[in-house]
Amino acid sequence: MTGSTTTPLDVADAFVSAWNRHDMAALADLFAADAHFVNVVGLWWRGRGEIQAAHEATHRSMFRDSQLHQLATEVRHPVDGIAIARTHWRLEGHRAPDDSPLPPREGVLVQVMVPREGGWQIIDAQNTDKVEGVLSRPQ
Amino acid sequence: MTGSTTTPLDVADAFVSAWNRHDMAALADLFAADAHFVNVVGLWWRGRGEIQAAHEATHRSMFRDSQLHQLATEVRHPVDGIAIARTHWRLEGHRAPDDSPLPPREGVLVQVMVPREGGWQIIDAQNTDKVEGVLSRPQ
Repeated sequence: MTGSTTTPLDVADAFVSAWNRHDMAALADLFAADAHFVNVVGLWWRGRGEIQAAHEATHRSMFRDSQLHQLATEVRHPVDGIAIARTHWRLEGHRAPDDSPLPPREGVLVQVMVPREGGWQIIDAQNTDKVEGVLSRPQ
Repeated sequence: MTGSTTTPLDVADAFVSAWNRHDMAALADLFAADAHFVNVVGLWWRGRGEIQAAHEATHRSMFRDSQLHQLATEVRHPVDGIAIARTHWRLEGHRAPDDSPLPPREGVLVQVMVPREGGWQIIDAQNTDKVEGVLSRPQ
């Protein structure tokens, strides 16, 4: 179960909830079969299967105890039939490859959604880490 | 002039061309008035005016001699009336705040587009720097 996906905000909430339960089947179920997802280091996953497999790998390792906090989510409907949800998030409890704890970090996740029966699903997502105090990267 | 915006690929090309001419009016003209853009460090610009002003500031300074190379652009039409263009790019010739040259860097830019008269325009964009050899950031 992913929770409700009746509204775009429900889908954004359900992504965070699935992450925090480390339920990657539920997380993947929020995406269309042909969705793409680019993560914070530019890894580009094509299709729900790749999205699920990649998240399963990291949730067995660096993200296994992590918790994602939804600081704010803004939903726009720029044209009929499209929702764009953008979430400012903070991640806590993640680990380095040597298993040492890492400090919290923040970022911005965009999720493009389209209607499906009974609600909305994600057709595209991209994630970016925030870096405070700079205009671009690297400085 | 931004060049042709007849197809989504034209718009992606025109963004790169405007960047390389440092013509921020042409770059901004590719966006809908209410478009949002999140850059590689999570700065979140709301509206064409903010997008133009932010790019004008950086193209007067760190990006004034920079050239953006379009390594590959992939356009998807997940549903009618939406195009999602994703460009793998390399930036060269940019500078640190102390004006010293910086090495090339690569990233992934997603641009969500909808039709407008005679072509397509960007309603949302987000940019992410690539980091090679890691699954997430920071490690």
